[in-house]
Formats: sequence, structure tokens, C-alpha cells
Amino acid sequence: MRCSPLVREPLTQDWAGDLARMFKALGDPVRLRLLSLVASHAGGEACVCDISESFDLSQPTISHHLKVLREAGLLDCERRGTWVYYWVVPSALQQLSAVLLTESAPTVPSEACAEVPA
Amino acid sequence: MRCSPLVREPLTQDWAGDLARMFKALGDPVRLRLLSLVASHAGGEACVCDISESFDLSQPTISHHLKVLREAGLLDCERRGTWVYYWVVPSALQQLSAVLLTESAPTVPSEACAEVPA
Repeated sequence: MRCSPLVREPLTQDWAGDLARMFKALGDPVRLRLLSLVASHAGGEACVCDISESFDLSQPTISHHLKVLREAGLLDCERRGTWVYYWVVPSALQQLSAVLLTESAPTVPSEACAEVPA
Repeated sequence: MRCSPLVREPLTQDWAGDLARMFKALGDPVRLRLLSLVASHAGGEACVCDISESFDLSQPTISHHLKVLREAGLLDCERRGTWVYYWVVPSALQQLSAVLLTESAPTVPSEACAEVPA
């Protein structure tokens, strides 16, 4: 059961490894801002051309950070012509959000958990 | 407003920096398991003596990881006699959980947000 909050029972070693890879990708301010910019962009997707004007970083640096987020399973992408378009993987964010829930916070309904890939 | 999910609007630079420090601390499987073990321990707190038998790691290594979690604001602690006792900071986990919420997930009620230190 991959939606069980970490405050409820100790994480298994395998599960902690999977989660740590995703949290590590979020452990950088530029990557967090990139993820947020993509997620909040009109239509829920963005290309590097949409993003680069918000960051004082080279396009290769931005592309590198986007790749780290993609490899962690937090973003997905598709090439269309010249540009690669990115969008967030909602089930990944839901999984991380659910595992951090404390007893005093509302629980994620079981339908949301069912969407989370094992 | 520190509960706004990152999918709703782009994170500011300052806020992304604060969040990234916490996510970075979670970006290690041992630290995630330690946090979970402390959080799910009877009474909601644990000392290194309770924890060390679950890990094939030296006590100084465990103490180092606990220090990283404490410095990130995810754990708090208190010395009692020989041992230091640790417990999770619920508002920190709630803050991270809330920022990762997607539109399709339930929103954290405003009372929970009010508990989150700015």
C-alpha cells in the first residue's frame, strides 16, 4: 500500500529508496521552481522556450534540471517539432503528498491512491 | 500564503529555497526511514537507543542523519539524561504535503495552514 503516510508505520527499505529518489530531485530550488512553473503554466505544460525567460540560467542548464525531474518520474515530456514540452505527473506528486500526511491532516481518498503506480 | 500548492502558481525564489532544504533532507533513504521510524514510534518520539537496532549503521552515523533532519526543521529533540529524544514537527510535514497537492487531490483545510510557521 503505497499511500500509507510515513508517520503511520516505518517505511520499508525499497519504498524509502523510491521515495528518496523523488525527494532528492525536489531538493534543489531551481528544480522546484521549474516544476512549479511547468505545473502552473497555462494548459499544464510548457516548453523550454516558455521557461527560459523566468530563469537567469542557460538553456542547457534548464534542460539538465528538467531531465533530472523527468528521470525521477515527476515530469513527463514529448518532442513536438523544435521543442520538447513538459508536464507534471500528477500521480507522483499525489504519492509524495500522501506519504507526508500527518494524522491531523485529511487523508487522501482511496481513489487517489488507486491511481498511484506501484 | 505558504500552503499554496506548487501546481497553482510559480514558487517564489525564497520559498523554493526553504522548501528545497527540507526536500533535500528527505532525499536519502536512510533519513526517510529514520523519520518514519521516529514518527511511527509509540508515543510519537524515539531515542537513538530505540532506533539503532533497526539499522545496520553505527550510532554516530544515525546521529548525523538525525541532525540533518533536525537542521531542516523536520525533527525536534530534547536531551533527557543519557539519551536525546526525537519527534517529528507535524507543521513541517503538513507544509510539504500541502505544497505537493495537485488539483485533483483534496485541499488542506485553512486551519492546517494556519499552524504552519511562515
